[in-house]
Amino acid sequence: MKFEVTILGSSSATPVFNRNPSAQLLNCKDKFYLIDCGEGTQQQLIRFGFKASKIDVAFISHLHGDHYFGLIGLLSTMNLNGRIKPFQIFAPAALMEILEIQFRYSETSLRFEIEFCPIVADEPRVIFQNQDLTVETIVLNHRIPCTGFKFTEKKRLRKVLVDKLEAANIPADYYQLLKKGLDLTLPGGEVILNADYTIDSDVPKSYCYCSDTMADGSYLESIRGCTMLYHEATFMDDLLERANVTHHTTALQAGLVAKEVGAGKLIIGHFSSRYKALLPLLEEAQGVFENTALALEGVTFTV
Amino acid sequence: MKFEVTILGSSSATPVFNRNPSAQLLNCKDKFYLIDCGEGTQQQLIRFGFKASKIDVAFISHLHGDHYFGLIGLLSTMNLNGRIKPFQIFAPAALMEILEIQFRYSETSLRFEIEFCPIVADEPRVIFQNQDLTVETIVLNHRIPCTGFKFTEKKRLRKVLVDKLEAANIPADYYQLLKKGLDLTLPGGEVILNADYTIDSDVPKSYCYCSDTMADGSYLESIRGCTMLYHEATFMDDLLERANVTHHTTALQAGLVAKEVGAGKLIIGHFSSRYKALLPLLEEAQGVFENTALALEGVTFTV
Repeated sequence: MKFEVTILGSSSATPVFNRNPSAQLLNCKDKFYLIDCGEGTQQQLIRFGFKASKIDVAFISHLHGDHYFGLIGLLSTMNLNGRIKPFQIFAPAALMEILEIQFRYSETSLRFEIEFCPIVADEPRVIFQNQDLTVETIVLNHRIPCTGFKFTEKKRLRKVLVDKLEAANIPADYYQLLKKGLDLTLPGGEVILNADYTIDSDVPKSYCYCSDTMADGSYLESIRGCTMLYHEATFMDDLLERANVTHHTTALQAGLVAKEVGAGKLIIGHFSSRYKALLPLLEEAQGVFENTALALEGVTFTV
Repeated sequence: MKFEVTILGSSSATPVFNRNPSAQLLNCKDKFYLIDCGEGTQQQLIRFGFKASKIDVAFISHLHGDHYFGLIGLLSTMNLNGRIKPFQIFAPAALMEILEIQFRYSETSLRFEIEFCPIVADEPRVIFQNQDLTVETIVLNHRIPCTGFKFTEKKRLRKVLVDKLEAANIPADYYQLLKKGLDLTLPGGEVILNADYTIDSDVPKSYCYCSDTMADGSYLESIRGCTMLYHEATFMDDLLERANVTHHTTALQAGLVAKEVGAGKLIIGHFSSRYKALLPLLEEAQGVFENTALALEGVTFTV
């Protein structure tokens, strides 16, 4: 099952040459989910060969511009390109007001529906579910209300032991019921115990996105044990004081968070424009959590 | 005197790979003026080596997103980079509301002042003057209120004939008065007639920017005789009907406008995303107005 994330932007507040503001594209079973949408995201999608028309849902962490200024342009382009299927947006409530005022003054009447789902950043909640994914908010600690997102694969069906089933002459018609964990009674009255013919599937994988936050430990339970963690690392640890004042995280802190929650892998991003070279940030995080990577634009990580 | 314009974006409504939405940077005597500001303009400034901090004025033609979605990000970055000097914006009144709502929800308190000057698109008006330039609106005919801008150099001082002045022993202290066209009476009573010692300066140059419009002839008097004309050319003339419906111009029409008003040079831009190659648009305009160029990004045109 495909479950991967592509980095579209990795810069913090101000853009840098060849570093765009925050945006990521999650691909789960060839369904596409946008996570944050900084200015220029639609250009980044073109650059990396993704079709905006394939994205049906966007999750916006908070209303600092480097996380959403690109959304209005993306929606406008979708409209001009003839989109008619609905587009779902999870974001702080005020974003809808910001979008609507701009559509109003440009006399834009969208041909598709925006399904807007306001996020309240008070406690972790499940905000989205489909057959592939569950999405929960992660309540972060930033200067304005801000949530991260935890994307968890749906619990997979049990694996059927085909050889054993065939040997017992159990028809394939029954496999779906067995995958769902049910015991069976065959027409002749024979009882087939599920446990004899199936095994548990792999543990569902999860991807946590922690956009802008102080590393104050308040959200650790929401991300504990995740398969892959994206965590902002705006500064290096010599600027810890600056990180605290601006409610951001250092690369060292991001590494410590990943270690503390037992993440499988850490990706750091949201780099301050002061850093031309990113290797020192990577090394700082790797000093405490080795399996760390940089959120470089265009790179796809498999969860 | 430096009077030149650099193309930052040349795409119409939807961006294309390597073609950004409308934005231009006018440099007049090393003062910088932004003309329209599509999404990604701040990245384009970085790309072409311009400092946003040097821009003090923006002129926004209308409130279709491909002409202003980049302004909020540019202003946010200026603020984060410590700008304190005021920034002046000429735009339709509603833009201020659009900016304010976004600053409010991001809890951004700008450290610099926005001097907002609403444009009314009813008749041509002088909206800006300094020692170098006069800026007048051009009332265009688009789907929503839209103005172009005519930038005219201030009438230059007269040229003094230094050799003749020196031969007559007229002290250099008087040159400034002569440049301003005044006759002089020297301390001994001798009268110096301005016409004997100066000649007229060159005719002031002018740059006209016609962003989005039908080529319906309504604005020709505003741009007559300009030194350089930027005119949108969204479509080729085989799509004239589509141009009329959407209130846009074809490349052929743009050429005819330049010819009709006796422009010195024509630059065409705002190309529809359907055109991968732009040469056919250039050739169509050149068929009626030879001195035509494409608004290619990063290219600087001297007025």
